[in-house]
Amino acid sequence: MTNRQIILRQRPEGMVDDSTTSVLESPVPVCGPGQALIKVGMLSIDPTIRTWMNDAPGYLPPIGLGDVIRSGGTGVVVESKSARYTVGDVVSGVTGWQEWAIADDTNKFSVIPKGLGLDLATVMNVVGLTGITAYFGMIDVGALSESDVVVVSGAAGATGSVAGQIAKARGAKKVIGIAGGPEKCAEVVEDYGFDECLDYREGHLARRLHESCPQGVDLYFDNVGGEILDAVLSNIAMKGRVVLCGAISQYNTMEKSHGIANTSMLIVRRGRMEGFLVLDFASRFAEAQLELAGMVLGGTLAHHEHLVQGLEHAPEALNLLFTGGNHGKTLVVVDESVQLS
Amino acid sequence: MTNRQIILRQRPEGMVDDSTTSVLESPVPVCGPGQALIKVGMLSIDPTIRTWMNDAPGYLPPIGLGDVIRSGGTGVVVESKSARYTVGDVVSGVTGWQEWAIADDTNKFSVIPKGLGLDLATVMNVVGLTGITAYFGMIDVGALSESDVVVVSGAAGATGSVAGQIAKARGAKKVIGIAGGPEKCAEVVEDYGFDECLDYREGHLARRLHESCPQGVDLYFDNVGGEILDAVLSNIAMKGRVVLCGAISQYNTMEKSHGIANTSMLIVRRGRMEGFLVLDFASRFAEAQLELAGMVLGGTLAHHEHLVQGLEHAPEALNLLFTGGNHGKTLVVVDESVQLS
Repeated sequence: MTNRQIILRQRPEGMVDDSTTSVLESPVPVCGPGQALIKVGMLSIDPTIRTWMNDAPGYLPPIGLGDVIRSGGTGVVVESKSARYTVGDVVSGVTGWQEWAIADDTNKFSVIPKGLGLDLATVMNVVGLTGITAYFGMIDVGALSESDVVVVSGAAGATGSVAGQIAKARGAKKVIGIAGGPEKCAEVVEDYGFDECLDYREGHLARRLHESCPQGVDLYFDNVGGEILDAVLSNIAMKGRVVLCGAISQYNTMEKSHGIANTSMLIVRRGRMEGFLVLDFASRFAEAQLELAGMVLGGTLAHHEHLVQGLEHAPEALNLLFTGGNHGKTLVVVDESVQLS
Repeated sequence: MTNRQIILRQRPEGMVDDSTTSVLESPVPVCGPGQALIKVGMLSIDPTIRTWMNDAPGYLPPIGLGDVIRSGGTGVVVESKSARYTVGDVVSGVTGWQEWAIADDTNKFSVIPKGLGLDLATVMNVVGLTGITAYFGMIDVGALSESDVVVVSGAAGATGSVAGQIAKARGAKKVIGIAGGPEKCAEVVEDYGFDECLDYREGHLARRLHESCPQGVDLYFDNVGGEILDAVLSNIAMKGRVVLCGAISQYNTMEKSHGIANTSMLIVRRGRMEGFLVLDFASRFAEAQLELAGMVLGGTLAHHEHLVQGLEHAPEALNLLFTGGNHGKTLVVVDESVQLS
């Protein structure tokens, strides 16, 4: 038995291409004491993976050349020499882009409860790190309140769509999405229930935001950075809050990154801009998961998963996040036999 | 008797020059019911005045063409038809650049206590809005703690020098100033007691900051914005805080404002960047003033006042803030007979 792995061959400039990664066949790792062997089922394709490919400071070290691409994923425990895991457990953690992974003390996985009645893709989307990110970004970092006019960029994306729905569910005064193209904007309003959605491709975003919320933006959940962040900053309300969740517009740009011109509006309006990582809230994940699972089961949280079949297509799946060619949470199916039920 | 006033004739581009303002002679205003007539003693020359000259959104409306230049100042009450003021009171408020001002319900002044034994210039500097700004920026917005490595830009300036001294007095682990030129840097260390001071004119600020604080900057008190803000952001520590007090490098630049390239470091390091205005803390001014007056009287707060003689020189005094030609808090003496004792 072999373990197909995707390794980083060369650091990309711009999009990932054929020279970026290679497929390698290694032996299936041996499960040692205190370890579990995991057959990988699905990979979570997230923008942050692209940042790890750069040789730049980040919240984790860059992926080394020749190393397996770091990635979240899920799988099933097929062998266990650890009290933490039982054969048959479906687990979530940093699998990497490969068919087999080892769980141990330095790479801990969490066991996904099976009784919720949710399929694995749904769990990996809204009840997983994607949904949890939206939850803590909106509630804790953003300090969402009912009087807020909320703006969410990347609103048709996995995190943004959940963030906006949480704001609506918690009674925000108005929730405005920003997305790319008329189809995504329609989806943001019709499927995800935002009050409106602005297509940034139409330009004049700052002016159109001003028309949509003349009193300004109280809470901005930013997934994209760059020019869109600048446009929202120019419309920030008194005591407005900018939650920096991601800056996808800057992750693989070939151009010099966009300098933010309107940070002084944070003085004028006494605003706060704060970055966060969901991992910082690890001790409280269950709080978010409980609410999110309840919303999904209750039918009040719309979600889409974009499944890409086959480990070897993970690089193209990552590119989809930057072209906008995905529809909802992007997942790569490595082995479709891995299921929650 | 006439009231000499300096009015805004034309909005400046870059520095204030002869075409920007005019001196006007008006009648001394008549003191009506509920009002007090104030003979202006000194004007507080602050960078924010330059922002009010632009036709741009701000925390106050722009100064209208033909209007007296808006400015803080102090004076003595010479006539009162208000229960708030007694003839002889020395008061502080928005006098404008003129010899006589009216206090009323829409332009309230505060009465300065005379018993502290401090001269008026000192009060206008460290016990006035300048010192109060440093206090709330450092303590409340910055959430200063003893484990903090603190960086202050404009460290030789009125606000920055107080901000750094408060950080030292409260036991911050290390306090690093940023200032322009070797003389100012020497003053920051020798007079104001910072641990060290970096001269931004020497370049490579990001690298030199990294050498000075390899573990990163926990709290940055920013008076300047622009490239210096970017250099500090690239060195922000985990959970670091950036207090946006001012952005003097951007206020009268003739060039396009500097776009901040490193906002994504707020995600990587889970940082917070927050703007504030001292006026938001009005209900708590006394708390700051009590501590600041105690420090001055106890000899633990060094301060310099840069006195410019004559109302007509107020425009040049304002320019000094941008050339760095001032030494400490810049005040214009309109009438030297106005004193606290």
